[in-house]
Amino acid sequence: MTDTAHETVPAEQASVAASPAASEQPKLSPADVESAVFAIGDRARRASRTIGRANRAWKDRALRAIGAALKENEDAILAANAKDLEAGLAGGTSKALLDRLALNPQRIDGLVAALENLAGLPDPVGTVVRGQTLPNGLRMRQVNVPMGVVAAIYEARPNVTVDIAGLALKSGNAVILRGGSAAAHTNTALVAILRDTLDSVGLPADAVQSVDAYGREGANVLMRARGRVDVLIPRGGRELIQSVVLNSTVPVIETGEGNVHIFVDASADEEMAVEILLNAKTQRPSVCNTVETVLVHRDSTVLPAVARALAGKGVRLHVDGRTMAALPEGVRAEAATDHDWATEYMDLDLAVATVDSIDDALEHIRRWSTGHTEAIITNDLRNAERFIAEIDSAAVIVNASTRFTDGGELGLGAEVGISTQKLHARGPMGLTELTTTKWIVQGEGQVRA
Amino acid sequence: MTDTAHETVPAEQASVAASPAASEQPKLSPADVESAVFAIGDRARRASRTIGRANRAWKDRALRAIGAALKENEDAILAANAKDLEAGLAGGTSKALLDRLALNPQRIDGLVAALENLAGLPDPVGTVVRGQTLPNGLRMRQVNVPMGVVAAIYEARPNVTVDIAGLALKSGNAVILRGGSAAAHTNTALVAILRDTLDSVGLPADAVQSVDAYGREGANVLMRARGRVDVLIPRGGRELIQSVVLNSTVPVIETGEGNVHIFVDASADEEMAVEILLNAKTQRPSVCNTVETVLVHRDSTVLPAVARALAGKGVRLHVDGRTMAALPEGVRAEAATDHDWATEYMDLDLAVATVDSIDDALEHIRRWSTGHTEAIITNDLRNAERFIAEIDSAAVIVNASTRFTDGGELGLGAEVGISTQKLHARGPMGLTELTTTKWIVQGEGQVRA
Repeated sequence: MTDTAHETVPAEQASVAASPAASEQPKLSPADVESAVFAIGDRARRASRTIGRANRAWKDRALRAIGAALKENEDAILAANAKDLEAGLAGGTSKALLDRLALNPQRIDGLVAALENLAGLPDPVGTVVRGQTLPNGLRMRQVNVPMGVVAAIYEARPNVTVDIAGLALKSGNAVILRGGSAAAHTNTALVAILRDTLDSVGLPADAVQSVDAYGREGANVLMRARGRVDVLIPRGGRELIQSVVLNSTVPVIETGEGNVHIFVDASADEEMAVEILLNAKTQRPSVCNTVETVLVHRDSTVLPAVARALAGKGVRLHVDGRTMAALPEGVRAEAATDHDWATEYMDLDLAVATVDSIDDALEHIRRWSTGHTEAIITNDLRNAERFIAEIDSAAVIVNASTRFTDGGELGLGAEVGISTQKLHARGPMGLTELTTTKWIVQGEGQVRA
Repeated sequence: MTDTAHETVPAEQASVAASPAASEQPKLSPADVESAVFAIGDRARRASRTIGRANRAWKDRALRAIGAALKENEDAILAANAKDLEAGLAGGTSKALLDRLALNPQRIDGLVAALENLAGLPDPVGTVVRGQTLPNGLRMRQVNVPMGVVAAIYEARPNVTVDIAGLALKSGNAVILRGGSAAAHTNTALVAILRDTLDSVGLPADAVQSVDAYGREGANVLMRARGRVDVLIPRGGRELIQSVVLNSTVPVIETGEGNVHIFVDASADEEMAVEILLNAKTQRPSVCNTVETVLVHRDSTVLPAVARALAGKGVRLHVDGRTMAALPEGVRAEAATDHDWATEYMDLDLAVATVDSIDDALEHIRRWSTGHTEAIITNDLRNAERFIAEIDSAAVIVNASTRFTDGGELGLGAEVGISTQKLHARGPMGLTELTTTKWIVQGEGQVRA
């Protein structure tokens, strides 16, 4: 079904000119922005018909060609990125943000490797989810098909531009991008390369478009482009995601926020607890699956060793009264407040509380969790089963690091994001989560009795 | 995992008093309504923990007990329904609406039979969607778990109260209902019976609650109860559904609207075309999978027979110029306008257009379809394949009636509704679509390298 139909690319789609950079943008009225963004949506819809029926070989060829084009145009990309970095420096952008904004040959190699990895993955389109012959002889099957038009609103990191475009293309979707204005020059350069390359392999350039030229109002229009955008994925900080979730009338997949807990049960092995907590907090503290609060059972004896190990790695502890009293000599901590239980630090900070029972741990987690990932360290089977059954989060982990809540680690091949909502996708999302299904029913004249 | 944990029902949940009927409702401020509805949401969340872990036997016992209680309390239900019908008559409610509102012993038997059918279906909770042992020895599985709190906003038919509550319970969810004010007395009686019965089998009464006492503002609060409501399902006419979709900040599943097309290709068999079109239009014209527009290829010769058969069943035809010229003697039709191509008649009306090619048929459908169901009648393999591949609707049917887009007909056992969106569920939704998934990862101390 997906192997057919190499549609001739209409003249309109063949225009590969990228959207103008934000800096060249004329001042448009809201109505002008709406009609411009809607027109982008309509072009994306048309392009989606071609990319949606392109077979895997064709899409993989496109992904590899994009990788090659990124390397070929590395100098141009880095020059555009330098402009963004310069503007950021002049505007007083923080060092952390500048680091996220910066590209270099290694990071471009990383993008190329990710595209190569994508090309190596199976095509999610065309998979038969279920199928049977019904009693009346009808043949029924439910098949994965592309969503159609995927949109993404994201912040500074320009690698998201290539990343999301690659995922969308592999899953047969057209994509509309809205990147952060801080990366405007870089994104303009990247989108132009993506579009030129699609055109060069006979796929519609309009399968990748940007609304960056239309500023904040462009993003607003995208959020209410019902019927034109099939799913909108926000990527970035909490404020961005909440704003998209609350203001969109198009379907949104909420990703990312992780106030992650680990419960150290009374029966937890000390060495295992130390290793898991060190890994979960310090291996990459800036990501959403890093642990933010540890709950220690009052009968556990692991606290001194755990606290020493964490402090030794520079982790700043924020602890409740009972934990403070139980800290070993030489380990300092701040007194924790509700603010600490609520905070996703994404840094070398960790809240620690002592609890009287697994019930208290579950209650604390129910109150403060964002539903991303929670783990238990235990040797008690009943408690492990209760934790698995009663925790209402996307991922529940027993005796392993919370850092495993990751599409790559869990064998999905590529990750679209970590959904913290329950509808459509929950937890790590792979390529299949960028598809929907279609019911196909075939008969020879059957009617309903 | 779901067989454990018969939680003791806290005193608060054991209060089985139903919400007061709308007629007894005191005038509350928006803030009061918000806190009342949020409190209902919090009680639903607590109840969801018990119902979510109740095993299948327990839930099925509850469903059968509800059926028995409906029969036992038939007189009380019908008396409440009589009050609603009386008020409706006095208020000038249309005959069609009164018919939808009316219960009788046969309709109550239908509800009982549906509950019995539900009890006979497998439990969607606990199904392992995928699972594997990862290279590092971690055991990973993705398992269906209940959503948590499901809400429904619907119109006059009081049977939806029992229907949705049954589906929610079977899938391990608590449910919050908002029925039409026209059915307020009936719904109050039904909700009281549902709650009493849950209590009698040791499940929390708060697994079924209503916000009917809080009027339109209650519905508004429900639509923005993020974090308290996991999914909201509107059931009813187009305006209700659009209003819920556009005003909700909680995740919504859009159901129902079906501007359904059948394309009669040049190679269509006349007898098959007549039978399918009669079935698709007249077997039950008021439902969403009934055909609304027929597109006839100009080279097809079936039009006279089709038009005669449809007219013979009282179908009013709305046709374009070429079709008008080709109608057989004695068959009358009105000239169609764009209004007809856009309309979901849900009645014995049918729009008919003549098209020059399958491309024209696809173009017409792209323009006017609501993405529910489209069918082709053909003997041409290439056209059948193109239709399947290029139609972007929840269901695509070849040589069979569009009336088969139905959960029961497609083997899902029970139907939650027909989703016309692409996220989470598309087309007929079964019990599994009222669940989400949880990733469960078990190890023995694994950390990420």
